[in-house]
Order: sequence, then C-alpha cells, then structure tokens
Amino acid sequence: MTSALQILRLDIGLPLDSGAVLSPLEIGYETWGELNAAKSNAVLICHALTGDQFVAGPNPVTGQPAWWANLVGPGQIIDTDRYFVVCSNVLGGCMGTSGPASIGPDGQPYGLSFPVITIADMVRAQAALVDHLGIERLFAVIGGSMGGMQVLEWIASRPERVGAAMPIASAARHSAQNIAFHEVGRQAVMADPDWQGGAYQAKGTRPVKGLSVARMAAHITYLSDAALHRKFGRRLQDRNEVAFGFDADFQIESYLRYQGSRFVDRFDANSYLYITRAMDYFDLAAGFNGRLSDAFTAFKGRACVVSFSSDWHYPPADSRHITRAMIGAGVEVSAFEVETDKGHDAFLLDEPQFHEAMAGFLAASAADQGL
Amino acid sequence: MTSALQILRLDIGLPLDSGAVLSPLEIGYETWGELNAAKSNAVLICHALTGDQFVAGPNPVTGQPAWWANLVGPGQIIDTDRYFVVCSNVLGGCMGTSGPASIGPDGQPYGLSFPVITIADMVRAQAALVDHLGIERLFAVIGGSMGGMQVLEWIASRPERVGAAMPIASAARHSAQNIAFHEVGRQAVMADPDWQGGAYQAKGTRPVKGLSVARMAAHITYLSDAALHRKFGRRLQDRNEVAFGFDADFQIESYLRYQGSRFVDRFDANSYLYITRAMDYFDLAAGFNGRLSDAFTAFKGRACVVSFSSDWHYPPADSRHITRAMIGAGVEVSAFEVETDKGHDAFLLDEPQFHEAMAGFLAASAADQGL
Repeated sequence: MTSALQILRLDIGLPLDSGAVLSPLEIGYETWGELNAAKSNAVLICHALTGDQFVAGPNPVTGQPAWWANLVGPGQIIDTDRYFVVCSNVLGGCMGTSGPASIGPDGQPYGLSFPVITIADMVRAQAALVDHLGIERLFAVIGGSMGGMQVLEWIASRPERVGAAMPIASAARHSAQNIAFHEVGRQAVMADPDWQGGAYQAKGTRPVKGLSVARMAAHITYLSDAALHRKFGRRLQDRNEVAFGFDADFQIESYLRYQGSRFVDRFDANSYLYITRAMDYFDLAAGFNGRLSDAFTAFKGRACVVSFSSDWHYPPADSRHITRAMIGAGVEVSAFEVETDKGHDAFLLDEPQFHEAMAGFLAASAADQGL
Repeated sequence: MTSALQILRLDIGLPLDSGAVLSPLEIGYETWGELNAAKSNAVLICHALTGDQFVAGPNPVTGQPAWWANLVGPGQIIDTDRYFVVCSNVLGGCMGTSGPASIGPDGQPYGLSFPVITIADMVRAQAALVDHLGIERLFAVIGGSMGGMQVLEWIASRPERVGAAMPIASAARHSAQNIAFHEVGRQAVMADPDWQGGAYQAKGTRPVKGLSVARMAAHITYLSDAALHRKFGRRLQDRNEVAFGFDADFQIESYLRYQGSRFVDRFDANSYLYITRAMDYFDLAAGFNGRLSDAFTAFKGRACVVSFSSDWHYPPADSRHITRAMIGAGVEVSAFEVETDKGHDAFLLDEPQFHEAMAGFLAASAADQGL
C-alpha cells in the first residue's frame, strides 16, 4: 500500500475545552478503500500518543512502515476491500494536523502559544474531518492506548454517530502513575536548554536530548518486565565482559538509546508536551458527574473492550472499569483480556487472540449494521 | 540521637573489581551503642542507592532525619542499648566515603576519573572499616534494596564473618527493567549541559535539572500504582480545575517536582551515575559459574529474606529466587512476603509485619550466637 501526506484545511473555528478557538484547522489524514454508496462502511482508527495517520501504508515523511500493517489492508482483518478506513493525525500532533509546530495566525510557529488541548478536542477535529468526508455514521471506531480514549470520547459525545466501538489497552481516566511518567517526560524536555521555553523553532535549536530521555522513560512502560527479560535479560552489547564505564554495556541500554535517538527525528518536542497533557487530563466520568456509566447510556452500538494481561501501563483493571460501566449503561459489550507477556505494546504486535477477537467483533458488527 | 560526620582515612590501596586500586580510602561512617568485650554484638546496616550512614540519628550535613529512626535506637527493634550498630556511606557515595566528588591524588576532584565500582567493592570498603573497628565477626548484616545486595555479597565473599543476614526488598541480580530505569536516569544527568562531561565541579556548575529528572523517574519505581492512587489519585494541586497549561496541575506532579528538587541539594550527580552502575553490574551468581546457590554454601549463619507484595522495583519473585538458592545451599533461611500496597518504599516505612519479622529474626539469631 502506498500513501501520501494529505492535509485538509478547514477555515472554521474549532471551539476547544479550554475556551480557546482554533482557526484555521488543518488535519493530516489518510484513507484506504472506498466509501460505499450508503456511506455505511467507514472505519475510523484512532492512533496512540506517538502514532500517526499511516495505519496501513508507510509514512511518506519518515519512511517508517505502517503501524498496523498486520491488521489493516486488502484481505486483512480490517479489510480495505470492504471498509473505508480513515485515520487522522491527532490535534496537537506533528504529522500535518494543527499543533504547536504549526504556523500560527501571526505567521510564526505557535510553540507554547498553541492552546492546550484535550482528548475531546482531538475528537472534535476528527468529527470535522468525518463531516468533510460526508460520513454521518461510522461503522466502527477503533483505537489502542490513547486511541482507545478517543474511542470512548466518541461514544460519549457523539453516540449516534458510531455503530461499533473497540477501545484497546486503554482507560477511561489516566492513573496517577501514568501522569507521573508523563510529567517526568515533560520535565526532561523542558530541562533541555535547547527547548528554549518552547520557542526552539524560532531559535533554530531542537531539544533532542531531553526528548530522547522522555522517550526512553516512556518506552519502559510500553514493555512488560517479562518481555524485557526475554528480549534482553542481562545480555551484554558487543562485548564479553562489562567495560567498567558509562557506555552501553547492556543490550537494554543500547536498545533504549536507539529508541530515544530514533524518536527525536520524527517527533516534535512540544507536540509531546501537548499530547501527554491531553492524556493526563482525560477523565471521561468527570463530565458526567463522576458516573462513568452515564457516559455510555446514549450509545446504542456494540462494544468490545480488549486488554493485555501483562500491560502495566494501562492494566486490565482499567479495561474492566470501562466494561463494568458499559454493562451498567446497558451497552452490548464483550470484554477480552489477552494472555501475553508483551505488555502494552502487544496491541501493535502479532497477538492471535487479539486479532481473532477483532475479526469476530467486526463480523458481528457488520451483521448488526446490515453491511 | 545525635550524630556527626566521622570520616576514617585509611592509607591503603583498595583493590577493585575493575582492576584499579583506590588509594587512599576514606569512609564516612557512624556507630551507635557500645561494642561489647567479646566484640560479638555488632550489627552492620547497609544503605540503599541514595541513603547514607545516618540510619539512627539525623544527618548533620543535610539536617534530614535518620532514615531508619523507626527501627534503630535505644529500645527499638535494632536496639542500640544491646547492639553496636555500624553504618557507613557506600564507596562511590557523597557523604564522606571516597567517591567521584572526592579529591583525587592530583588534588582535583575525581569526576569521571574515579574508578567504576561494584557492590563487591562497596563490601570491600565496609570490611576495611569493620577491620579497623576490630570486629572479626558481625552479629548481623542487614540492608534493604541496594543494601540487600551488599548483605548477599557479604555472605558470599566473607561467609565466616557474618552471623545473621537479612536482605530486604532486594535481588541477587539487577533486572533488565531496573537497568533500563537506571539508564534513563543516567542519560538525564548526562544530557544536562551543566554536567560538563562529569567535570562540573571544576567548571563551577551543577547538573541540577538532569539529576532532578533522574530522581523523579526513579521515585515512581519506589511507589506502587496503588499507593500513588491512594496518596494522590487525580487530585489537583491548589486549584479546583485544570489550568490548561504545563504547570503542575496534579498533586502527583508537584510531589515529583518537589522530590526532584530536594534530592539535588543532597546528592552528587556523578555519585548517582557510579552507584546505579554498580547496581546494574550486580549479578551474584556470575562469580559462581551461574549457580546462585553456590554463592551461599559456605555461609553457616541464619538468614531471613523479606519482600513486599506490591514492590515492582524488586518484586517478591526476586526474593524468592534468593530464598530458593539459599535452601539449595542448605542455609537456615526463613522468607517472608509482607502484604502491603506501599511498594518498594515499604522497607523504610512503618510496616508492622516487617518489623515483627525482624524482631523475631534478631531474637533467634541472638539465641544462636549466645548473645
């Protein structure tokens, strides 16, 4: 599959939770497959913190492969011969959608003058794209991690526009531990003098060291202790004995350094601040007097909540919390905890149980919706 | 209890695992109670990564309270009316013992020219202190976290010198996940331009931002998710609504920032690099052809291995690994997993089950040793 960087510019004012209005709104997005005549076969896929719209074809900017190539494509489980797949870069991102690196109304990059955004704001931007594409009701909305938060926000704020919802390895609110890890990442970025108070674009610098440390810390949370042990253990990198120094003696050290250094080439540091902030702020029940089930009562579609047993970033308990609230709201919900040692990242990997569950859920949803 | 900064200077050459020889050796230490005539009542307490020798009386340099005031003192479980308690700052530390901030033979601070050290080197330095105090055999060696590693090293390398051993919330080898967290901390320090390639003392700077980020990341690992949820949850700091900005909206953010900023006042950044490296290198079985039980066969004393159910930094499985090896070696070992939601930090807190276990273990050991 091939893809290109498509950017939609909407000369609207997007009202944000903070009270600010963003104008214009640009949305980087990609579609695969054909929208049918009834416009009833659209699948919206929502990406995670550092993801992008290139869910099924390689990213033309970075050259990175599609992040869900194992799930989305012709004849795949999310079958682009059957479904019209839409994926957009989130608001605040750095792959075509308006974010802190975008040029603001004054002709300068926004930097920290970009308004702080929320998950609900991301969904507002997605809804504007879906409107533009002429789609009234989405066949399904699917997403993992932060993408799952967007799925939950969609069915809470626009229940009539979603036929089926699949939040994967996600949470209805961000835990104190997750806020803590994000704060470490933000402090690492902001501690870098090249961050320049957020104005690094104007100053011609880039806080690559700080952003790299942030990515390293975050990356640990994406993997389970068991997976790290299996992949790396205490194995040494290109040496037979420890070197009694501060180079990367252990493979895990090299791996993390590589993850950090590769990340800074493709991601904007301020976007990292804004998007982690949006995740920290997410607490879906807060808008419903603290009753999460009230967020789901208007949703009449089908839901499937997936978690991974060794995910300590968004642990299965977070998914059970969602499922219980959906049951309380009368939603037709199934829930599935995949047994795996791969941790949070499992939602991106080949996990047969997960993939089977998704295939079954989509088949049942297609039957529901007469597709 | 009062205490003063006592420093022992030994004009010896301390041979290190790296092959380097450290000379002279300075040891910052503190003692409480009286050594009896038979010199049979000495308890050596080994401190954790960022601890110090002030286990029972306040730190006279920082003004911080004793870190085990709830356990060590007259009439306490480690009773200074009965035992002669010795605690020394670890090699590589910054509270009086030779470390990277010490003045080297050339009259300049060592910085990165200080040799890389290991847990075994720390124990070598402690043994030199114990020799200096005229103690042949220690009644007990006790320590939590990195202190527990030193306990294990003592009974593996000097089994005849230890009567009773209590490693708490520790491990016989550092896991890949723990190496990963340490590497993030080191990279945070080294990313700070004020680190100056380790030569910040000579340059008159201090990498406070980098060290603060390192401390914040580490601090998360010391607490359980449940404890963070109980202590902080998603509660806001001094405000009723989120501020749509990057100040500390949440209490957990303020708390972490405070932990980071307080830490940099009392700890040397290069010491942090050296000591985390020593922990990463620790793999007790490696010196015994990979058979951990062989490390314990020469130890004829009593052991008690304590872990905490919600400790994910040094999880109970790490302690079970130690216990199994001790059983295999024929050591008289008891093991106890304390039920608590307080995470790794529980070893420093009031945990009645833990304290009862320690009291019972010391009583049984005193009976063993006719004390």
